[in-house]
Amino acid sequence: MAKERLEEFALIDLLTRKCNTIPTSLQSRISIGNGDDAAVVKGANGYDWVVCCDTMVEDVHFKGHTMNPYDIGYKALASNISDVAAMGGAPLFYLVSIAIPASWEEEALAEIYEGMATLAKEHSMALIGGDTVSSPSSMMVTVTVLGEVEAGRKLTRRNAKEGDLIFLTGTVGDSGAGLDLLLEAVNGVKDHNHLCPSLLPLVERHCRPNPDVQAGRILAKSGLRVALNDISDGLASESWEIAKASGVQFLLNEACIPLSSAVKEYGDMKEKDPLYWAYYGGEDYKLVGCVPEIEKERIESLFQQVHHPLFWIGKVEKGEPGVFLEKGNDTRVPLPKKGYNHFRGKEVGEE
Amino acid sequence: MAKERLEEFALIDLLTRKCNTIPTSLQSRISIGNGDDAAVVKGANGYDWVVCCDTMVEDVHFKGHTMNPYDIGYKALASNISDVAAMGGAPLFYLVSIAIPASWEEEALAEIYEGMATLAKEHSMALIGGDTVSSPSSMMVTVTVLGEVEAGRKLTRRNAKEGDLIFLTGTVGDSGAGLDLLLEAVNGVKDHNHLCPSLLPLVERHCRPNPDVQAGRILAKSGLRVALNDISDGLASESWEIAKASGVQFLLNEACIPLSSAVKEYGDMKEKDPLYWAYYGGEDYKLVGCVPEIEKERIESLFQQVHHPLFWIGKVEKGEPGVFLEKGNDTRVPLPKKGYNHFRGKEVGEE
Repeated sequence: MAKERLEEFALIDLLTRKCNTIPTSLQSRISIGNGDDAAVVKGANGYDWVVCCDTMVEDVHFKGHTMNPYDIGYKALASNISDVAAMGGAPLFYLVSIAIPASWEEEALAEIYEGMATLAKEHSMALIGGDTVSSPSSMMVTVTVLGEVEAGRKLTRRNAKEGDLIFLTGTVGDSGAGLDLLLEAVNGVKDHNHLCPSLLPLVERHCRPNPDVQAGRILAKSGLRVALNDISDGLASESWEIAKASGVQFLLNEACIPLSSAVKEYGDMKEKDPLYWAYYGGEDYKLVGCVPEIEKERIESLFQQVHHPLFWIGKVEKGEPGVFLEKGNDTRVPLPKKGYNHFRGKEVGEE
Repeated sequence: MAKERLEEFALIDLLTRKCNTIPTSLQSRISIGNGDDAAVVKGANGYDWVVCCDTMVEDVHFKGHTMNPYDIGYKALASNISDVAAMGGAPLFYLVSIAIPASWEEEALAEIYEGMATLAKEHSMALIGGDTVSSPSSMMVTVTVLGEVEAGRKLTRRNAKEGDLIFLTGTVGDSGAGLDLLLEAVNGVKDHNHLCPSLLPLVERHCRPNPDVQAGRILAKSGLRVALNDISDGLASESWEIAKASGVQFLLNEACIPLSSAVKEYGDMKEKDPLYWAYYGGEDYKLVGCVPEIEKERIESLFQQVHHPLFWIGKVEKGEPGVFLEKGNDTRVPLPKKGYNHFRGKEVGEE
């Protein structure tokens, strides 16, 4: 086994080099990349670094029969990019620390790195370091992302105020429904070939979510007061986080929550309200936030200029921090922070 | 179990806050620390960031019966700080991603964070983020460290040239001998109370190694050409890395390799040459490097000013990259890059 491990580590080294085509825009920013004790990256005048770090664990965050290695790599990077996007930042560099069980094949490892490299290329990012170790059991991958944002322009959860409008930068619930669909499929559906074509976008959104860096950058560069969060744990949990951090109440208009046709179709099939996945599904990686009402048209125009979707879903009110739903017939009900996620076997929004 | 997990995660959140006393020197540098999607830290004019990321895995990098949780946390941070030190950098911030099996007690988790906080305080570092997840089996901890170094002053492995002198910033072999000692002890020696007092420094060095940031900073600020590596995989492997990266031969004078009295005593006890641990033991986290011979006195004076040890252990020669030992009787033998590490069950220097 020792020898096999050695070969795998050498492979990772090779993969790391192969998958790390450094974007031209970053070449002058990397002083030292892979191949020394640490990476050295240059800051730019007037910018702040944004740094985050997320771990994905086999049998906790993904299962071999619902996600293939390519998607695992893709998603591990995506969740970190989304954290940078949620601050209004531009992702630049990433580091990957991976713990590999002996049972994993070389091909699977290669696919993990390919998945990351594909998404990294889309966002003009460069791999600058990491670590590769053995795991006695589960595969785990930890990704650290470094990005930057104009000094003083970071968009935090604390920025919401009474009177603000609440927006979403895309449909929600697709990823949660996609996971539900994958878990329901008998024996798992690794290649997704047996799925109904109209439902494929749900699986795609769960396995290869694309973080909304563009929206975050528009908002950061707007110069306006913006509160922002990414939808990693569902709209309910993320709304609660902004409401608590800003000391305000969220009033979401249920009729305005944007849902894709695919999630509606799947809801019909399962006889389940698709809003459940919107509120509690998570991992959609769109952005939810608040801006002053007076800036509504300006924000709309900025998004329209780049043909990026934008949905107004409610307003911010004064009161004890919390989140409420406005139903059609003028009734108002509280939206609990947590929903039960049967995959993780625990309440969502607490991890 | 779900509920227990939730409580543990809440505990980590608490511990993270508790253990994160932000040094005064860094308070103005943290724009956003814990509690948002990502951390935002300010660069300083004229400095480059140094970033690295290492993972420690239960039963791979440590065993419960040789290292207690405090030491695991301490060492996970130490190995990353050492990587920054090996670039001549000053460590500033760290992120911790931890995967926790259900079997771990709250107290043990608290100790992991305390171990890190102790070392962080010593180096005036601040915890700025991370992730906490469940692990279905082994405990794993990934630490990312961000540091900075004066622009253009990073000290890499590629800087060695023919005629340079080779130095070490401390004794080597102690950590490897400490591990050997711990593994030999029947049933493990968690509290180390049963060890012969004169051997305790070996265990201390293995469990709580202090990275040599001071030496790295002296060398970076000297303005001289310096090649540098930290001793994470043993003197043999680290010497090989510099020799290969710089395209030179290392000639180490065996009589000059600095050994502690404790490692000599333990070598006598075990009837084993203590140099074995110096070459192949690893995890001493002292620095090995090369400087031009003409600068010998200047470097010595810089180290003497702060009462920091410095040992001259050999010289750099022209030739096919490699490492040789000069024995007492003018013989010269090659020093192989790898030695067998019976704990890891594989060749060292390849991970």
